Amino acid sequence: MPEGLSYAAAGVDIAAYEAALERVRPLIEGAAGRVGEFAGTYELPGLGHLVASADGVGTKIKVAIALGRHRGIGADLVNHCVNDIAVMRARPLFFLDYFATGKLDPEVFEDVVAGIASACREAHAALLGGETAEMPGLYALGDYDLAGFIVGLVDPGRLPDAAAVKPGDLLVGLPSAGLHTNGFSLVRKVFEGMPLPEELLTPHRSYLADLQELRWKTAAHVTGGGIPGNLPRALPPGLGYRLDRSAWAVPGIFQEIQERGRVSDEEMLSTFNLGIGMVLVVDPQAAPAGYPVIGEVVAQA
Amino acid sequence: MPEGLSYAAAGVDIAAYEAALERVRPLIEGAAGRVGEFAGTYELPGLGHLVASADGVGTKIKVAIALGRHRGIGADLVNHCVNDIAVMRARPLFFLDYFATGKLDPEVFEDVVAGIASACREAHAALLGGETAEMPGLYALGDYDLAGFIVGLVDPGRLPDAAAVKPGDLLVGLPSAGLHTNGFSLVRKVFEGMPLPEELLTPHRSYLADLQELRWKTAAHVTGGGIPGNLPRALPPGLGYRLDRSAWAVPGIFQEIQERGRVSDEEMLSTFNLGIGMVLVVDPQAAPAGYPVIGEVVAQA
Repeated sequence: MPEGLSYAAAGVDIAAYEAALERVRPLIEGAAGRVGEFAGTYELPGLGHLVASADGVGTKIKVAIALGRHRGIGADLVNHCVNDIAVMRARPLFFLDYFATGKLDPEVFEDVVAGIASACREAHAALLGGETAEMPGLYALGDYDLAGFIVGLVDPGRLPDAAAVKPGDLLVGLPSAGLHTNGFSLVRKVFEGMPLPEELLTPHRSYLADLQELRWKTAAHVTGGGIPGNLPRALPPGLGYRLDRSAWAVPGIFQEIQERGRVSDEEMLSTFNLGIGMVLVVDPQAAPAGYPVIGEVVAQA
Repeated sequence: MPEGLSYAAAGVDIAAYEAALERVRPLIEGAAGRVGEFAGTYELPGLGHLVASADGVGTKIKVAIALGRHRGIGADLVNHCVNDIAVMRARPLFFLDYFATGKLDPEVFEDVVAGIASACREAHAALLGGETAEMPGLYALGDYDLAGFIVGLVDPGRLPDAAAVKPGDLLVGLPSAGLHTNGFSLVRKVFEGMPLPEELLTPHRSYLADLQELRWKTAAHVTGGGIPGNLPRALPPGLGYRLDRSAWAVPGIFQEIQERGRVSDEEMLSTFNLGIGMVLVVDPQAAPAGYPVIGEVVAQA
């Protein structure tokens, strides 16, 4: 029986990648962003904590290039970064980008920067600058890569504390707007030789307003690794979670990917957001109305 | 007569690139880093200014890959960033990196991160995190790209002010350690089909200690565009400069590049640092001993 597609078969081996990260861990003093939390923190006594995060958009960029639509990629980049610091209760201060290409295409560049600038305005983040690099020989004609860097500020005493999370706390799911920026290496394998649906490019949603308005203890931004790869970061040692997969409807695009690629349920869950882009851990007395409760916190076996 | 090599012929057209940047300028509200100064600033009332910069290492990375030596690239990246905020009188707070590749090579990755971590320690910058992206299909086998983001703090009232610069102020040159991170697309053309000298990989020097110890009004980090591309950023409107090219000896590696590529003097000056990696603008009464005076500030014609 032929095997279905997996993320490893598509060229991204999460386990090997995690092992490589573990090897460099001793080299990084006081690092937080890369090895655990969603963003690194730096205390400014009296003012709170600066929170910083670096992100890319992965091979979603290849889909944008294939479809010739670049404006959404800017929002993808900024919103991914905004969410990574919003789960630390930071409000964005400023953003910088890195745009690298073989030969600068002014129209593509303008579309990308327009998307970045617009998403920065929405997040009230100053677009403080960036680096634009022409690197002939490193990028193929028409290709480019993009990275973003955000800094925000958390008021004193407001950093989320996983120690406040207890068994019985509820997991509340906030809907995603599609694939966001993860799983695209697998998606590109699945659609190889077929037209790519434009729906794949729907930009990464910003949860900044939700995270500022709702009450929650900790929150997990569902990016690479899906819920299993990200929710544990929002839980203290010794606690796990039980997911109720019947609590929300997985959007059709994910079903299409699963069917076309004959991808296992487990692989789907650990690769895609499956319609839940943010998970809030909330007190059972304080679950916000209007969002699905997708599981609960449990003592680890 | 065959033409000598130019940066544009090597695939990097600075003029077209500047034009593209100008096109996006209206999109960027309050941007500083990309369109003028060396780094963007963000005021924290009472505390001073946060200063942030994003940088890459350009196609020096292709030389590192060709020679299989990756550790210096980390220092290149960090020191480039450190210098860009040191000219704003910022002391580094923290650094993040973006490492993107087709398929993660754990040894290369470890070398790069070791170099980054070491240079961060020297600069007393916390290595706060980073993003490591596997992007099959975007990078060729063995290739990778690298970007860095740094944040520093300038004490209140300490931001350099170009308005303090007067005609007759002296230009003091601090020696570079080689090519640093600029001009490599041209260098790779020049050495096409020949063995690449390891000397090309000498890491970008950090000027943090010099800039903290010496007295200066403004300073220019000599990167892409050479002295003509960077020194004007350290001068107020209406003032120019006169360079005394006999005041320092251009290191042999630059002479070798010029001869092999039959590159014009003008092209050399606007592509490479030519042995001067940092230019300080100083009061004529206060020129530091031990460094060449390479020119002076003049009223613009």
